Amino acid sequence: MEDNDQNIEPENQELLQDLSEQGKTEELVEMFEELPTMDVAEFMEEKPLEDTIAYLQKLDMDDQGRIFSDFTRDLQIKLFKALDRRLFAKIFGSMYSDIRADLYQELSKEEQIELIPYLDKKIREDVIILSAYPPNTAGGIMNTDFATIFADMTAAEALTKIRTDAPSKDMIYYIYVVDHTMVMKGLVTLKDLVMHEPQDKVLEMLNEFFVYAEVNEYRESVAQKIEKYDLVAVPVLNSLNQLVGVVSHEEAIDIIQKEVTEDMEKIMGIMPSENDEEYMATSSFHHFKKRVIWLVSLAAVGIISGMIINEYQGLLESFIILAMYMPMMAATGGNTGSQSATVIIRSLSLGEIDDKDWAKIIFKEAKISFMLSVCVAVLTYLKIAFLSFHSMLPPGFTMSTLGIVISFAIAIQVVTSAVIGAGLPLIVRRLGGDPAVVASPAITTIVDITGLLIYFTVATLTLGIS
Amino acid sequence: MEDNDQNIEPENQELLQDLSEQGKTEELVEMFEELPTMDVAEFMEEKPLEDTIAYLQKLDMDDQGRIFSDFTRDLQIKLFKALDRRLFAKIFGSMYSDIRADLYQELSKEEQIELIPYLDKKIREDVIILSAYPPNTAGGIMNTDFATIFADMTAAEALTKIRTDAPSKDMIYYIYVVDHTMVMKGLVTLKDLVMHEPQDKVLEMLNEFFVYAEVNEYRESVAQKIEKYDLVAVPVLNSLNQLVGVVSHEEAIDIIQKEVTEDMEKIMGIMPSENDEEYMATSSFHHFKKRVIWLVSLAAVGIISGMIINEYQGLLESFIILAMYMPMMAATGGNTGSQSATVIIRSLSLGEIDDKDWAKIIFKEAKISFMLSVCVAVLTYLKIAFLSFHSMLPPGFTMSTLGIVISFAIAIQVVTSAVIGAGLPLIVRRLGGDPAVVASPAITTIVDITGLLIYFTVATLTLGIS
Repeated sequence: MEDNDQNIEPENQELLQDLSEQGKTEELVEMFEELPTMDVAEFMEEKPLEDTIAYLQKLDMDDQGRIFSDFTRDLQIKLFKALDRRLFAKIFGSMYSDIRADLYQELSKEEQIELIPYLDKKIREDVIILSAYPPNTAGGIMNTDFATIFADMTAAEALTKIRTDAPSKDMIYYIYVVDHTMVMKGLVTLKDLVMHEPQDKVLEMLNEFFVYAEVNEYRESVAQKIEKYDLVAVPVLNSLNQLVGVVSHEEAIDIIQKEVTEDMEKIMGIMPSENDEEYMATSSFHHFKKRVIWLVSLAAVGIISGMIINEYQGLLESFIILAMYMPMMAATGGNTGSQSATVIIRSLSLGEIDDKDWAKIIFKEAKISFMLSVCVAVLTYLKIAFLSFHSMLPPGFTMSTLGIVISFAIAIQVVTSAVIGAGLPLIVRRLGGDPAVVASPAITTIVDITGLLIYFTVATLTLGIS
Repeated sequence: MEDNDQNIEPENQELLQDLSEQGKTEELVEMFEELPTMDVAEFMEEKPLEDTIAYLQKLDMDDQGRIFSDFTRDLQIKLFKALDRRLFAKIFGSMYSDIRADLYQELSKEEQIELIPYLDKKIREDVIILSAYPPNTAGGIMNTDFATIFADMTAAEALTKIRTDAPSKDMIYYIYVVDHTMVMKGLVTLKDLVMHEPQDKVLEMLNEFFVYAEVNEYRESVAQKIEKYDLVAVPVLNSLNQLVGVVSHEEAIDIIQKEVTEDMEKIMGIMPSENDEEYMATSSFHHFKKRVIWLVSLAAVGIISGMIINEYQGLLESFIILAMYMPMMAATGGNTGSQSATVIIRSLSLGEIDDKDWAKIIFKEAKISFMLSVCVAVLTYLKIAFLSFHSMLPPGFTMSTLGIVISFAIAIQVVTSAVIGAGLPLIVRRLGGDPAVVASPAITTIVDITGLLIYFTVATLTLGIS
């Protein structure tokens, strides 16, 4: 995917830039209030720290909290260090609760202790509770910015309560209906409330069969619910069925991006990380640790290929041409196997195929790879015919015989590799594992070995030597 | 990512199953109205076609349209073929407009012509207009289920208009403010309308600086806007600034999934498709076409490796041990290069790194791969020391010398491969291309060649022979 997101709304950036250059501070501040907070945040990020602070202080607390939430983590921490604690605590209190909890966790223990006394009791509790959940669970990604009503209210009363509560809540598309102990009874949409007569009871429009997440549920599963049911947000309940938070659709997108990165890393034999690190923020040593295990293990297994070559040394010495086509044999097998594995892993992950249909899938891959093998074999034969006509051959063998032998071996290698590449992820899934662990490097190494065995066996049998 | 979405709300499926087995049709239909439509759709999909039709007919048109929209494309087409045209046209008219247009495009020309006369004029126009946009643009993925108001209305009037219009609209979190020619003036949220006094003018709460998509804009760009600005939906405008549709957040998730699949395919040297095909629905021949070009091209280039081996035939004959470690050399290089390329491509795609920082990135990859190279080299040396002590060597050479030579060559290979694997995507991005085209098979083939050159050059120089 292209990441030209810098240029999504360049006109807004230019607008702010122009006003700033012309010194029209009042108009500038007005635009801060009008434009999407993400654009304002990006504009401020380019400015010196003191300007950013001055700009922020011209805005009301809600806007400050929203814009600050959209800053990069780096800038948030810089501002924490630069600002007076009391001032920072106010902005911190107006942030989105989930981003606030994430920022809090980035601070050192000392910094956390410094900040705590300046926070309102409600904010303090909120931050501490949200920070307590593991980051890969519903609790770790939820926010607490939701609106609640009671089932015995009328639509009019409910709307009044929302009017009172809501200024601090940004997302009030779903309104959660709870009892007085916060046990969730159901939900109504804002649309339901607006569409009903003012005197209608909430109970009448209550949706009791709602999709929810448990607080300890894995974040992947939460993202899947949002995706499957096309939800704007999903409520999070604890073991007592109390409403403790909400995960919104934007989190689902983030999680899907992270999960896909993990899948791609696994396929390439990179250990996925516990936390979600950015490339540059991750130390070289950590990158090293993520890659080394597969690399060294496969290098260790790779010696088997060497031993096979050693075994057939005599054959190679008589037919130098066999050695020439050996790397192509290995590479083509590796490429075919990796292609099949990637297609199967991705299709499994998107739910397009089911491991129960393994026989159909393997048959399909065999068919596809048969067509591929014909192309590769013809190419190989032509190459041998054109490039290798003055290679030396022992008496009694023609280049055309050898061309057929090598092409035939490569054709078998292509089909075998595709079947191995497709079969391994299916087996892993069948055994209950994550098919993405069947890394492409592992498949490459396996088909290297099977390929050499095929190559030398075909050559030995057809050339009638050993 | 795990796709255990079959089990997200198993209790709902069981509930429906139980009611169905007990023959409690009335309660069953009641539950159809209560449960999330996706659960109902999944339940009906398991039933015989005639049961599904009977169930649907017990529901009101809106519910029929919603549930039908959640059916798989296969079932939708089966029902189109099984149902009376007039009956089908009614369900079709109640579907979500974007899914409806997609279904319409799946029908054959004859089937479309058969259906058209049964459709209401409004539905007919809607379907035909939506079907006219290319599927990879905003127009191709938008729906027309939005609510509009005028700027001179009061909040109360606006809510009344929404109440009248809205039953057919599912997503009314954003209310779009247009003039009488449908030119978009801005938007308000349903929350804005509810929070203001009834007599307040829409104009006062109007958000004029809204994020929008142009109808011909690529769908990736639309998805990025939804992701960047955390939107529930984004309005789509034509060149006259008229509001023609809305793309909702659930489309963004779908697009991101599709784009990621494309990226993974490209990395593995598979040509991404024009349309979004599912694995099983795509013919083997089409799969073949998507994979064959890279495979054959790389096999063609692979012969260079063979020619290099041919060149150093004399060296290999004197030092059989060099041949033994050749496959490991190639495989380790390919693995390291692919790992680096994948990490860099993904980080570029997520916007974590910028190609402007290429020098820093290459330096980082060099550092990481230096650490990897030390591990691989030590392993190689140990393997040679333990496994190859009775290999034959020409007089004057010790196994320990050869161990050092081979390990050193492999260490250089690891660093070179990582730098090539990271550098190529950065160069492609710098030239304005999509870094994912630097397929892992291509990198494997390149480092195969550079690896053999490194291997034989190091061996020739250090062993003092040719």
